[in-house]
Amino acid sequence: MAMLTADEYRESLRRYRPRVFVDGDAVESVADDPRLAPGIAAIGVTYDFATRQEYAEVMTAKQATSGQTVNRLAHINETNQDLLQKLEAVRLVCRESGCAQRYLTHDGLNALAAATQIADAEHSRSGGRYERFLGYLHRVQDEDLTLGIAMTDGKGDRSKRPGRQAHSDAYVHVAERRPDGIVIRGTKAIVTAAPYVHEFLVMPCRSMTAEDADFAVCCAVPVDAPGVTVIARPAGRPGEKAATFSGRYGQSTGVVVFDDVFVPHDRVFLAGEYAEAAHATITYATHHRHSCIGARAGFGDLLIGAGALMVEANGLDPDRHGHIRDAMVELITVVESFYACGVAASVYGVDDGASGVMPDPVFANIGKLLLATKIYDMHRLAHYVSGGLVVALPGPDEDHNPETAASLETVLAGRADIPADARRAVSRLVEDLTASYAGSWYSVISLHGGGSPEAMKREIWRNYPVGEKVELVERLLGRGVAALDSPLRRRVSRQPGRCCDAGCDAPPPPT
Amino acid sequence: MAMLTADEYRESLRRYRPRVFVDGDAVESVADDPRLAPGIAAIGVTYDFATRQEYAEVMTAKQATSGQTVNRLAHINETNQDLLQKLEAVRLVCRESGCAQRYLTHDGLNALAAATQIADAEHSRSGGRYERFLGYLHRVQDEDLTLGIAMTDGKGDRSKRPGRQAHSDAYVHVAERRPDGIVIRGTKAIVTAAPYVHEFLVMPCRSMTAEDADFAVCCAVPVDAPGVTVIARPAGRPGEKAATFSGRYGQSTGVVVFDDVFVPHDRVFLAGEYAEAAHATITYATHHRHSCIGARAGFGDLLIGAGALMVEANGLDPDRHGHIRDAMVELITVVESFYACGVAASVYGVDDGASGVMPDPVFANIGKLLLATKIYDMHRLAHYVSGGLVVALPGPDEDHNPETAASLETVLAGRADIPADARRAVSRLVEDLTASYAGSWYSVISLHGGGSPEAMKREIWRNYPVGEKVELVERLLGRGVAALDSPLRRRVSRQPGRCCDAGCDAPPPPT
Amino acid sequence: MAMLTADEYRESLRRYRPRVFVDGDAVESVADDPRLAPGIAAIGVTYDFATRQEYAEVMTAKQATSGQTVNRLAHINETNQDLLQKLEAVRLVCRESGCAQRYLTHDGLNALAAATQIADAEHSRSGGRYERFLGYLHRVQDEDLTLGIAMTDGKGDRSKRPGRQAHSDAYVHVAERRPDGIVIRGTKAIVTAAPYVHEFLVMPCRSMTAEDADFAVCCAVPVDAPGVTVIARPAGRPGEKAATFSGRYGQSTGVVVFDDVFVPHDRVFLAGEYAEAAHATITYATHHRHSCIGARAGFGDLLIGAGALMVEANGLDPDRHGHIRDAMVELITVVESFYACGVAASVYGVDDGASGVMPDPVFANIGKLLLATKIYDMHRLAHYVSGGLVVALPGPDEDHNPETAASLETVLAGRADIPADARRAVSRLVEDLTASYAGSWYSVISLHGGGSPEAMKREIWRNYPVGEKVELVERLLGRGVAALDSPLRRRVSRQPGRCCDAGCDAPPPPT
Amino acid sequence: MAMLTADEYRESLRRYRPRVFVDGDAVESVADDPRLAPGIAAIGVTYDFATRQEYAEVMTAKQATSGQTVNRLAHINETNQDLLQKLEAVRLVCRESGCAQRYLTHDGLNALAAATQIADAEHSRSGGRYERFLGYLHRVQDEDLTLGIAMTDGKGDRSKRPGRQAHSDAYVHVAERRPDGIVIRGTKAIVTAAPYVHEFLVMPCRSMTAEDADFAVCCAVPVDAPGVTVIARPAGRPGEKAATFSGRYGQSTGVVVFDDVFVPHDRVFLAGEYAEAAHATITYATHHRHSCIGARAGFGDLLIGAGALMVEANGLDPDRHGHIRDAMVELITVVESFYACGVAASVYGVDDGASGVMPDPVFANIGKLLLATKIYDMHRLAHYVSGGLVVALPGPDEDHNPETAASLETVLAGRADIPADARRAVSRLVEDLTASYAGSWYSVISLHGGGSPEAMKREIWRNYPVGEKVELVERLLGRGVAALDSPLRRRVSRQPGRCCDAGCDAPPPPT
Repeated sequence: MAMLTADEYRESLRRYRPRVFVDGDAVESVADDPRLAPGIAAIGVTYDFATRQEYAEVMTAKQATSGQTVNRLAHINETNQDLLQKLEAVRLVCRESGCAQRYLTHDGLNALAAATQIADAEHSRSGGRYERFLGYLHRVQDEDLTLGIAMTDGKGDRSKRPGRQAHSDAYVHVAERRPDGIVIRGTKAIVTAAPYVHEFLVMPCRSMTAEDADFAVCCAVPVDAPGVTVIARPAGRPGEKAATFSGRYGQSTGVVVFDDVFVPHDRVFLAGEYAEAAHATITYATHHRHSCIGARAGFGDLLIGAGALMVEANGLDPDRHGHIRDAMVELITVVESFYACGVAASVYGVDDGASGVMPDPVFANIGKLLLATKIYDMHRLAHYVSGGLVVALPGPDEDHNPETAASLETVLAGRADIPADARRAVSRLVEDLTASYAGSWYSVISLHGGGSPEAMKREIWRNYPVGEKVELVERLLGRGVAALDSPLRRRVSRQPGRCCDAGCDAPPPPT
Repeated sequence: MAMLTADEYRESLRRYRPRVFVDGDAVESVADDPRLAPGIAAIGVTYDFATRQEYAEVMTAKQATSGQTVNRLAHINETNQDLLQKLEAVRLVCRESGCAQRYLTHDGLNALAAATQIADAEHSRSGGRYERFLGYLHRVQDEDLTLGIAMTDGKGDRSKRPGRQAHSDAYVHVAERRPDGIVIRGTKAIVTAAPYVHEFLVMPCRSMTAEDADFAVCCAVPVDAPGVTVIARPAGRPGEKAATFSGRYGQSTGVVVFDDVFVPHDRVFLAGEYAEAAHATITYATHHRHSCIGARAGFGDLLIGAGALMVEANGLDPDRHGHIRDAMVELITVVESFYACGVAASVYGVDDGASGVMPDPVFANIGKLLLATKIYDMHRLAHYVSGGLVVALPGPDEDHNPETAASLETVLAGRADIPADARRAVSRLVEDLTASYAGSWYSVISLHGGGSPEAMKREIWRNYPVGEKVELVERLLGRGVAALDSPLRRRVSRQPGRCCDAGCDAPPPPT
Repeated sequence: MAMLTADEYRESLRRYRPRVFVDGDAVESVADDPRLAPGIAAIGVTYDFATRQEYAEVMTAKQATSGQTVNRLAHINETNQDLLQKLEAVRLVCRESGCAQRYLTHDGLNALAAATQIADAEHSRSGGRYERFLGYLHRVQDEDLTLGIAMTDGKGDRSKRPGRQAHSDAYVHVAERRPDGIVIRGTKAIVTAAPYVHEFLVMPCRSMTAEDADFAVCCAVPVDAPGVTVIARPAGRPGEKAATFSGRYGQSTGVVVFDDVFVPHDRVFLAGEYAEAAHATITYATHHRHSCIGARAGFGDLLIGAGALMVEANGLDPDRHGHIRDAMVELITVVESFYACGVAASVYGVDDGASGVMPDPVFANIGKLLLATKIYDMHRLAHYVSGGLVVALPGPDEDHNPETAASLETVLAGRADIPADARRAVSRLVEDLTASYAGSWYSVISLHGGGSPEAMKREIWRNYPVGEKVELVERLLGRGVAALDSPLRRRVSRQPGRCCDAGCDAPPPPT
Repeated sequence: MAMLTADEYRESLRRYRPRVFVDGDAVESVADDPRLAPGIAAIGVTYDFATRQEYAEVMTAKQATSGQTVNRLAHINETNQDLLQKLEAVRLVCRESGCAQRYLTHDGLNALAAATQIADAEHSRSGGRYERFLGYLHRVQDEDLTLGIAMTDGKGDRSKRPGRQAHSDAYVHVAERRPDGIVIRGTKAIVTAAPYVHEFLVMPCRSMTAEDADFAVCCAVPVDAPGVTVIARPAGRPGEKAATFSGRYGQSTGVVVFDDVFVPHDRVFLAGEYAEAAHATITYATHHRHSCIGARAGFGDLLIGAGALMVEANGLDPDRHGHIRDAMVELITVVESFYACGVAASVYGVDDGASGVMPDPVFANIGKLLLATKIYDMHRLAHYVSGGLVVALPGPDEDHNPETAASLETVLAGRADIPADARRAVSRLVEDLTASYAGSWYSVISLHGGGSPEAMKREIWRNYPVGEKVELVERLLGRGVAALDSPLRRRVSRQPGRCCDAGCDAPPPPT
């Protein structure tokens, strides 16, 4: 099974006939709609790069359960080295595309690999979930598919649990159990890349209780399954002349409505096993935050490169202008310090409770927490080194106005050996990446995507071995460890068993 | 002379026939072009508010030299109270309009009032500059005009002084001296509100030397003077459906080309007096940074209000959700702490070297420095409290799609007593203010407008009375003040005499 | 009544015979004990400066109720100008002494002036509290006394209210009501300057309920009243050779035990009026946070001066070494930006509910919040500009060792025109101010003194007019103000009526 | 050769008779002087831990060149895993001792291993440096010695190069070359652990030119070689009752004077090879910054543990008090994010130009840069969670005063199940670690030790592959890489060849 190229991926989307709306219009053909093209191009990078020899090691991996070489972003991690290479792979494809989106496929598959094994162990009589999952996994890998993660529910009234909502559709749930499968309904509010994936992995966005067991559902649904509707934003800013980058690569998010969608048994991985579904959710969150680190470091590479080019075009030299060098160093420090957390999360990756490894949750959450807030500093620093031109340059429609062209050339001539046109191009790129709808999108998605800061803080606190440090200090104080039974003291080591919500009902609700 | 209303201001623009291009098109009528309407509306706020009884004290003032009541934004400050009321006036009009732009008129007029008096004193035989300026000032006030400040030059090769540029048009300069006036030429790169002002005040953007005396020119030029061309961006984002706010209020910046423009003597305030021109530049910068503080505090008011509304629409309560309250408090702290610097700059306002007062330069520069970097935190905090919906909500064209309306209502129903439509409206406002072209515009203009951070740092260091603190500590150490002659020790008090560049050739060049 | 000099103040302490322990020893004579001398010297500055002609305006004021000229730090504010001058006075005495402590007298007196008037108005039949207070006030002013504020209780089990503590002495309370007065008992945990004040003002540290009415007691107690015991730390670091500054000026805090102390009626201002006692507490907190701003700005002056001297002694020039200039500018920016909040709190000072004015609580709390955290940055910046010498220089006992003196001279010779001895002196001063017990003391007291950050955040949120901004935005959105009754909307303006705790039971408890 | 225990290390110091002064006194016996005991105890931890079975893997390593198992802190790294284990080893010994100091031995030895090999390759005829070094190395390892790094020179007038100083002793240099060795003289200003090491490794603190070749000297000198004098501070705060921790573990720094000290050839590694000496300096700096990361993370462990204990003793629960949890999470985030940079520097460790590996310089410098400034935040956060008690608690001499004991017990009784004494002990520990001479020492040494921030910024900028990002962006812009020859573009990858100063003449000079 050869891996697909970007072109083949786009063509493969023609096999599906999803019901998709963008800006109020029904989309005839996802593969051909210009409003979705930047999203398809961005995911396309993950296909093309996997076929390039120089990237083979980082972009592909051998799936142990099948023996097949598969795309890294659909691989189940077996070693800490896998985690590190996945991190590097995500950075690589995102520095090219801004955000290549497909790492969510990886994050979802890895979470379900663990959760289905654990569910089999816990509920021994009704086993076979992992086997079913493996069958599905191998098909996804062999057909080189991209999956969307349908996780964030509509949520409705935040003061009520899923089972007690006035609108039961506020959360996706099992509406009916049939002999051959289940019927699900409800609405997922933010699904990345929704219109141009092959299938959705449906997962709950928070932990459920016995009472909410019907809401603990993990299954796979083709994008064009009967009853599925996608209401999406355009991917990037296609068609805008100034959108040099985001007109080419972008990301769509969609609301996905499941209106009594039938899912046959071989695509149902969990349906009611609420503890294991919660495990899937939290494991997904940890993998995903780790992936986000790689993604945003890739975006950082773009800013560093664009900022340096802009400095050059402005005729400045960081080695002579200390304040420019300082800003470049600060930008580098921001990017590489959160990336380092991703590296550490890989190196100290932990058992995922089943046969795989997952990133260390403390380092993964710290890295995501840092990038969530520091993305704003990244924009600030890119603006700082670039100067005010990025928002003062007349737009592309002015470029060829013969009545003004000469005057603008004069204004743009900063340095004799750099043509005005080059400076204009870099300036527009910086604007597009940092001072536009697309640029701001990176901010908000870094802050809230994959869980808001409050969710990361919870996870850091829940997982950090505070108890171990308390014991160290008590020993140094010469006091035996007191008999006190306090929450702090119980935190001697990670507590993989207890699941919190994956940040989904944390702070500012995404919808 | 009654003050104009916003409507009368717009109508008054018909008296002028400027040569303006926007996005490659020649503008037929500035007053009617929808691409400029948001800019005209924003400035209009400064007219309307001055006619409202409840704002009379803050929005108007009595001009001592004429005895007339004039718009506060065209008034020459006589007292520290004037400075404080101007600060409040700027906040008031900017919280309504985002950025009302007209305070630049104030900043320029105040700078020239001082510089012309000083020049008259220095160059006694060739006096009359201040009288000439007063005549101009009274006309501006009496006709209730708005002036654009044409200051930031094209600059060309930053390693060369103005007089040594390959393109002499890189800086505006006196090209010819005639018996009845002067002829100027050159290009100003970033002129706020250029297309819809009545006149330009031309001023140098840096200090000049004797060698560059022809570049030390301060004069007034009608927007439609022969030889003037304005190449502008649209004001705000007119016509974009999602641009709820910036479709209504916005700001245009323009490149202004002076192609051998004749300026009669009564409009020439300085032409060769390089020391006094430098004084005008630095005084302008101090007034302007002070004004920027008020402007951005007004923008902060919008974010605080919009953030609070979004929190409410999301169904959250800051009194119960500590992390939301903390973010709101941080947003308030950011805004009010830089505003406090504006207040202190007013209260401790200093003699401007002539008959007026100007803001204390240390406090004014600190306030501007803080807002320049903290605008990014303001955006971050607004996003934090608002949640991811602001970039995930399907666009306005989806609102009335009957095939998706019901599903979207479900997703948007967070709180029973707030209709989905209200939540949608607030969400779009937050996006428009913080996560769009218009939103990012506020970031970059806060960072670089009125001088980049490096320029503020220079001014803070130059003006701070370090020497006084050194003496304090030496006394406490029991050592007499050493005989050392060091730069630190000379900084016993402000040094109004020495002029640096007004930040214009500082760090990242705007063009 | 002439105002006292520092010497007279020290002598006046001999009139009292308090029971004081320092480091386990009973103190024979407060006026003579070297362990308390730095504290007495620091307060002495507030006396001496009030007698100096050049400081007359800032250091003294005319008390309207008596017509007497009094020390500014014992004056009841009548105008916003009073608030501003008090702020400047505090900065002036603290830049000389590090922390002159006596501003607490001001803060307590102003709080009680308001609270007694309000109590008289509320409880009309049992009036006379304000008259009683005025009598006391005039005596304090006329005798030029210094008062300690006995506010922070022991607190005991923080999960229980005062009236429900196992140890009732955890909070000071009325133990008995007699015809001629009351008997109070309990322990105050942190009382600034306790051993060397003339009297204590006892006030509650949190709001009380009807149930805790006996804990709502405000009264005045001489430092040597029978039953009072003070357990204190030494003031500063007297006797340490390296403690150049803190051996001379310092501050003691003490635990003050009230063991059935009788207080006659004319010194009892509130005893059971829990609502007004809460008002006193919160009003005190607002005044005190405002004073803290001035105090820490004075400390900032010391750091700026010492840092600049150290830079000079190291042979560096901020005008040539950009990173040194940047650090100096950052230090200045930190200090002056929180000071600006104090200025704004003065300018926008508000009615205190009685006949006086108090600082605007939003600005006052923001200023204190900023200094609370930024004191650490101030230390960092002072260290940054000073270099590692401050902790590597051999101690004073080495200075006169003939076997090493020559070698050390070589090491210390950075600049030919600055003797090694001068560099040594500045280095030790920086260490004393920032890298010692005394230096760290400034950090912790800035963070927690006058209320911890959590308390400031509560007050900012409680007082900020969020509702006004919400209305602004709703109007701009074109929606009428909704009928929603939410907490946000009720915050249209300051709510002086409702009292929260003055930060006392907020975050990390001081004891 | 068994490794020594802590006791054996202390005893081994008796073999040396160094000339040491502490606080003006000559030290008779280093092993017995109580003023040095905390330093000897801290280094002792590195001995004891290496003998403990559970730490064998992290604390020891096999030296490839000798086949011997040696202390990890004297080992030459061969793999990236070695770098990671060294990092962990440093954290382990520093969390026990505050700062175990001996990692400098590691940093110096690794630098000289590389530099001597490169010198042999460059200067082929006069080889044998590496062989000589290896002989020395094996003896150090086999005798389990601790080495001090004598690097930071006195520096004198910073505007002149070493060879042009008025005092030639401002820098250590070769004063005479003899047939059997060299004679060195000059003063090193800050030598960590100077009095209680076995030998010094002398190295230059900056790069030298041909003109300064005599200053490019690397050699080993026993602590008691004739002509060596050490003028030291006490280690920690021995004898202070409140210094619970720093009375036990501490660190001394010393000025080391070399007064015509003869060094035989077999201890001279470089003497005039200025390029290779510069390589040694920069390589040392990179190793050392990496080690500092581990050291300060260990200090962070102490703060986290002590902070958590204090929270508990105060009766607070982070799971219920959000602001306490947030502060703990921020403290954890600070510590683990700079530690992650150490991990990444290990994982991406690079060839050291000879047979070894060294940490990636970008990550190592970023980690050190972060800790240098964030140590102040660590102190702030420890204070925040601990409360004001840490500076208000009466001192140890008060503990057993029968007249006050009962009252203090009441004040200290926060929580019924935690005795007052326990709360007192934790409070004093927090004060000792963060609000004392010892606590501040950690701040300053983190900021300036191993190079000041300016030095790290230079190295980050020098080593970061900016050129690679520039190429990426140019490709995305569709422009071929321009022919421009700019400094940015040459930075395609690390430039190990060019050496800058190891931060020694960077910002605020340590002496």
